[in-house]
Amino acid sequence: METQADAQADGTSIGDWTSCAADPGYRAAVLDLLGALAYGELSAFERLAEDAKLAPGLPDKAALARMASAEFQHYQLLHDRLVEVGADPTEVMTPFVEPLESFHRMTAPADWLEGLVKAYVGDAIATDFYREVAVRLDDDTRDLVLRVMSDTGHAQFAVDRVRQAIEENPRVGGRLALWGRRLMGEALSQAQRVVAERDALSNLLVGGAVQGFDLVEVGKMFNRITEAHTKRMAVLGLAS
Amino acid sequence: METQADAQADGTSIGDWTSCAADPGYRAAVLDLLGALAYGELSAFERLAEDAKLAPGLPDKAALARMASAEFQHYQLLHDRLVEVGADPTEVMTPFVEPLESFHRMTAPADWLEGLVKAYVGDAIATDFYREVAVRLDDDTRDLVLRVMSDTGHAQFAVDRVRQAIEENPRVGGRLALWGRRLMGEALSQAQRVVAERDALSNLLVGGAVQGFDLVEVGKMFNRITEAHTKRMAVLGLAS
Repeated sequence: METQADAQADGTSIGDWTSCAADPGYRAAVLDLLGALAYGELSAFERLAEDAKLAPGLPDKAALARMASAEFQHYQLLHDRLVEVGADPTEVMTPFVEPLESFHRMTAPADWLEGLVKAYVGDAIATDFYREVAVRLDDDTRDLVLRVMSDTGHAQFAVDRVRQAIEENPRVGGRLALWGRRLMGEALSQAQRVVAERDALSNLLVGGAVQGFDLVEVGKMFNRITEAHTKRMAVLGLAS
Repeated sequence: METQADAQADGTSIGDWTSCAADPGYRAAVLDLLGALAYGELSAFERLAEDAKLAPGLPDKAALARMASAEFQHYQLLHDRLVEVGADPTEVMTPFVEPLESFHRMTAPADWLEGLVKAYVGDAIATDFYREVAVRLDDDTRDLVLRVMSDTGHAQFAVDRVRQAIEENPRVGGRLALWGRRLMGEALSQAQRVVAERDALSNLLVGGAVQGFDLVEVGKMFNRITEAHTKRMAVLGLAS
């Protein structure tokens, strides 16, 4: 028998928001997801604006400010959607403030290049995760998630700057490779904490709301995200 | 005989960019003006993003991030215009980096309320100044300047928050009144420095490019801006 998850992998739909949100567990899980995503965007805005101050010149500063501004536009879309479905944005974001701030405290970049690598790696891990989850969502929520996960131009910018820096001074590569491993470790640690604390969200991930998705699948998903991270570090010219 | 400045005060035009920019002095003055404005917007973005970190809660943080993002959109318009007229944005912004950064160093807000008052007062002084100058500009440049000087919603936000804080604790008013005076003093001091160092810009202000605008008029303009500042401080509930 074909499960819902199989059906989705085939490109079919579990329905729109109105029909799916009739299930309170599903609604709670999606609000968690959108809350995490919204605070993530607000936090990305702050982090990129902070990195802009470290920029070695005006064009780089403006480029970072442009990306920060794009993250804020994404935040606004999520905020407006939360209001539209009758949720309080502050309330749904609050549980994710502390885990994200912990992550940022543990991984404060020491310079411009560490900031670039962090933004690149952090965005990519988040994008991979949300794209994995997106296939298990109703059509309306999935469209929104994919839209706010669209590239803000940061990836290519970071790759260009980091590769150039390593070319000029190969020793930089060793330091940044170590930094990349630390980022991945902290990101996984905070993600595990969130999953452990948020029942509705975990249920969405382990098959509470949608059939056919179990803990083995969650493990495989984290493996895929780690593999993608390894490939991205190689693109930066770094061993992961 | 009617001077050009009189004509403009009547709402008539000195012509479009193409005809006015044939005069190299006028072109240099406008590039200075747009460069100062562009770096001002980029700097406002950074300052508001910085203030967002001091926000007492998520809604206030998001409100500041929204304003920072609006300032960045204004920067982008100015940047694109500079490229359009064949100027290098970095080159025309560079002379204004140090005066603006000096201003920010001398007036680093100690808390959320000082940040709000600074953004409110600083934006308002800049807006008054550029609106005064705008009437002496060609149609294309004037339209752009007025567009990027449009309210980003910051003023009402700051007024509401500051008045509420003073209501809750009247002693806050004395401290912020002092702060407002210091901001105005530093702003005038940096503005004088810029005018002294930038010949083309000063010529635009004292009638080099446009007739009928002399040093007495510049003095009157600074008086009008100071008077407007006094009224704004009163709106905040502060003695200036």
